[in-house]
Amino acid sequence: MNKPNPFDNIRVVLSHTSHPGNIGAAARAMKTMGLRHLYLINPKHFPDPQASAMAAGADDVLQNAVVCGSIDEALQGVVFTAAMTARLRDISIEVQTPREAMPQVLQEAASHPVALLFGTEMSGLTNEEMGKAQLGVNIPSNPDFSSLNIAASVQVVAYELSVAAASFTLETTDIQPASHERVEGLYAHLEKTLFEIGFFTTQNPARLMQRLRRLYSRTRLEDEEINILRGMLTVATEYNARLKRRYMEEHPDVQKH
Amino acid sequence: MNKPNPFDNIRVVLSHTSHPGNIGAAARAMKTMGLRHLYLINPKHFPDPQASAMAAGADDVLQNAVVCGSIDEALQGVVFTAAMTARLRDISIEVQTPREAMPQVLQEAASHPVALLFGTEMSGLTNEEMGKAQLGVNIPSNPDFSSLNIAASVQVVAYELSVAAASFTLETTDIQPASHERVEGLYAHLEKTLFEIGFFTTQNPARLMQRLRRLYSRTRLEDEEINILRGMLTVATEYNARLKRRYMEEHPDVQKH
Repeated sequence: MNKPNPFDNIRVVLSHTSHPGNIGAAARAMKTMGLRHLYLINPKHFPDPQASAMAAGADDVLQNAVVCGSIDEALQGVVFTAAMTARLRDISIEVQTPREAMPQVLQEAASHPVALLFGTEMSGLTNEEMGKAQLGVNIPSNPDFSSLNIAASVQVVAYELSVAAASFTLETTDIQPASHERVEGLYAHLEKTLFEIGFFTTQNPARLMQRLRRLYSRTRLEDEEINILRGMLTVATEYNARLKRRYMEEHPDVQKH
Repeated sequence: MNKPNPFDNIRVVLSHTSHPGNIGAAARAMKTMGLRHLYLINPKHFPDPQASAMAAGADDVLQNAVVCGSIDEALQGVVFTAAMTARLRDISIEVQTPREAMPQVLQEAASHPVALLFGTEMSGLTNEEMGKAQLGVNIPSNPDFSSLNIAASVQVVAYELSVAAASFTLETTDIQPASHERVEGLYAHLEKTLFEIGFFTTQNPARLMQRLRRLYSRTRLEDEEINILRGMLTVATEYNARLKRRYMEEHPDVQKH
């Protein structure tokens, strides 16, 4: 099987993995399917002899693994993130099966960095981590026993990716989606602005930001669009600040906060 | 996902597994996809605490596992066997990908016992074991690193089975293929007869039997057909024995062997 280039753009990100053996087994699973880039967010034990033992020949994947202190560090430069979830539906994100999702992952990886994000052995990904993704991926499983081992999940997803690659044809698109950190910058700016203009006095901030993430992850924002949106936010803040300043000037008796 | 009945007819057979952790991980992989029947041919260590640890909740699959002393014992009553192979082609058997093969496995399992046969960690299945199967299954993998962990292979195959089951429709067929032991009985009879009639003086017995297994595994012999073939073999032997007897009577000077 001849692997196309997209695989060089795909990183497997494991968040807060407890058992080093699982890291090694995941590395082996990756390599059998032609994936090479492993990122580890705060692994409990790494490097570790158990990881090497379970890698069984995929030592190069472990040796080149990038250990990160945060999810934002692990997603640096990434433009599209597919996150594993045990849920069939999710409030903040669209959820697909690996078979549905992997062609799109390949498509994205043909032009920019892509992440496949896996959570912990015990509890998967946090809501905050899920919120960083553009797509949720659920491996269909036995409803009475759905807990796939993390390396087994990596194997299934990498296998689907490999099968999809065998029949892959690049679709051209005019959209140049922005990187992870640019999109996160927008969300941070948006949240700050909504606080400043007093929007969150009547809304649950966490829930609302989740809904907004969902909206924008669907649209796949471009750099220029992020500039426009942030420009709007800046103006809104300034307008609001001007209003506040004028109000304070006209009501000097009101206590500042 | 609603599992149809065929899963009750499917057994996963692991031959001569070295590491008990792999047995446990395979049990977990099976259960996540709704498979329950595990057969172990001469496992090196079983039961074993490592197997239970790696099963992580699939203890029932381990507890009900059937430990066998031979492959024929493990395939007792089985009518269709799909055997894992690292080869893309095989002299003695047709080889398909899991995606191609699993719909047929389901189809077979809808009416009779079926086995998914996995070899050892180090060397897979022997030629003799492959010869017991009707179909070879090769998981497409990185040509530079194709060694999937055995539990990872079980996971991929069970996953493909589970996905195939979601869109499964039963095809009716008029063929009632014979069981493993009936077919093996024919091969043993055939080999014995070919020896007796002196056929193997000019042929490599092992290679020829492999070719004959390939031929008959393609046709899917029915019970009645096996009766006919074995009847022919019996007559051939008797005919040969008569010829030999007559020859010896007419040439009393020839030494018996």
